[in-house]
Amino acid sequence: MKTLTRNEAARFLAEHDHYLLLTHQRPDGDTLGSAAALCRGLRSLGKTAHILDNPQITPKYQPYVEGLTIAQCPENAVIVAVDMADTGLFPLSGQELTEQVSLCIDHHASNSGYAAHTLVDPDCAACGELIFSLLQLLQVPLDRAMAEALYVALSTDTGCFRYSNVTASTLRIAAQLKDCGAELYPINKALFETRRFARLKLEARLTETIRFACGGKIGICSIPWKLRGELGLNEDDLDDIAGFARDIEGVEIGVMLKEQETGGCKLSVRSSPRYDACAICSVLGGGGHRAAAGATVQRSLTESQDAVLQAILQVYPNL
Amino acid sequence: MKTLTRNEAARFLAEHDHYLLLTHQRPDGDTLGSAAALCRGLRSLGKTAHILDNPQITPKYQPYVEGLTIAQCPENAVIVAVDMADTGLFPLSGQELTEQVSLCIDHHASNSGYAAHTLVDPDCAACGELIFSLLQLLQVPLDRAMAEALYVALSTDTGCFRYSNVTASTLRIAAQLKDCGAELYPINKALFETRRFARLKLEARLTETIRFACGGKIGICSIPWKLRGELGLNEDDLDDIAGFARDIEGVEIGVMLKEQETGGCKLSVRSSPRYDACAICSVLGGGGHRAAAGATVQRSLTESQDAVLQAILQVYPNL
Repeated sequence: MKTLTRNEAARFLAEHDHYLLLTHQRPDGDTLGSAAALCRGLRSLGKTAHILDNPQITPKYQPYVEGLTIAQCPENAVIVAVDMADTGLFPLSGQELTEQVSLCIDHHASNSGYAAHTLVDPDCAACGELIFSLLQLLQVPLDRAMAEALYVALSTDTGCFRYSNVTASTLRIAAQLKDCGAELYPINKALFETRRFARLKLEARLTETIRFACGGKIGICSIPWKLRGELGLNEDDLDDIAGFARDIEGVEIGVMLKEQETGGCKLSVRSSPRYDACAICSVLGGGGHRAAAGATVQRSLTESQDAVLQAILQVYPNL
Repeated sequence: MKTLTRNEAARFLAEHDHYLLLTHQRPDGDTLGSAAALCRGLRSLGKTAHILDNPQITPKYQPYVEGLTIAQCPENAVIVAVDMADTGLFPLSGQELTEQVSLCIDHHASNSGYAAHTLVDPDCAACGELIFSLLQLLQVPLDRAMAEALYVALSTDTGCFRYSNVTASTLRIAAQLKDCGAELYPINKALFETRRFARLKLEARLTETIRFACGGKIGICSIPWKLRGELGLNEDDLDDIAGFARDIEGVEIGVMLKEQETGGCKLSVRSSPRYDACAICSVLGGGGHRAAAGATVQRSLTESQDAVLQAILQVYPNL
């Protein structure tokens, strides 16, 4: 694996052709927006470029990759992965391509270096920031479609500029995308203001059933498997739900337990900066980051609630 | 009334002293953040400046005006109103000052021109953008407290950069505030990510009781007066709730009816760009803007629901 600078990565893109771009499993706005902008940028330079169709693209992102996808990897394609930290995240349509990636463009510090050439910058809030600077180095004038795809990337990975990863550069790039003709509001409305009624029903149910402990510092939510059918929930509705309890005023450690179809539970812990979610999940055999961690618990929902509460009190006996 | 340019307003501020700054009734982050930044900026120039204490400041904004307020208008003070479009919005503590405002700095196109000198720019998403450029013209180096106050102003009036009023300039100013040392995430978390449990209970209740019509294009929500006591709702919990129904997927016209203590209902209508909320409210004797309008309906909650549905169908018979 060779690590590239931005200039080297731009030169790589200028010197090759016949690109196939890969997006990650359960694709979000950053991987799709980044791939779409890069694909359009490469095409504007006269190159052939496609995004490998990703069977998990949800309807709200479909418009951004319209006309850019291809069902199969063409022969002798130069494969570029965007926003993909590890081979475990390869799209279901590209599982056989893990050893064939020529260039990986990513912003995850944990990038495993599976590609022949890798450009990683963990200081970028979104992979879209890297794509923006590569297109600048390639002197691609951004059209509205490219600018909007990049805006989708930036706004997705920053929660519309709310998360702690936002830098002055993130905001300046967003301003430049607006200058290039991106209509920000329709994107914000579709991605951040519109709420599915099924999601609201889920939040209502969680509000009714949340279990508080330690004077409200701990909030534990559970999603029984059968609730998915009962409320008509899809994957989009469950997106980001892990932080539901943590975002309630006064809660320092928020827990989400999702019962699995085959039994057992998926545990997500989200914590305020004072508490270590990873330490809590480690007790249950899981791991992650300080603010966000997870584990798989092979018990019933009720037993799992007790187990995670015990784990929290084991790490923080004086909570 | 004399209209000032930004340069003229900056010169006015440089030439006078002993400032009293006024914020509007039910003060939000824009009026308070703008006043706080301007007050600190004027003080950094060696001038005397205070914000008139506003009895309606809610706890989340209190830290930003700490040490800046004064209980009463000092004699011979030069009064500056920020983000205040009309004398009807004067703070409860300053009702007698409506004829004594020397300078008004505002971004509402509807500004009534009640001040001796007025700087208005409706292209600014927040009044804080105007304060930012005035402080630049006054060559005030922004410290962290000023930058954070201005960030509160910008983020409040743009819904953290989600609304249609965001311009490239809004985003660039936010970037400069970050450069000046503003910590954006703690502000975003306090203002936009933390949810009061009472608010969640309110949303749960609205989700259970919402009435859809015209195949889901209309959503009508009601808040009975007694629900405020039952759920322990405060004014912050009811902030922005008017848009609840409109933000549900598929809803084009969202209605919120708030029963009043003395009987009758306050009606708010929020619509997608295709529909005119003002036309609907006009039928019921109210008014407002195309996207957001209101009226007072002197009927019971159930009767008001029917009345507003009728009004919508009167304006849009083919919905």
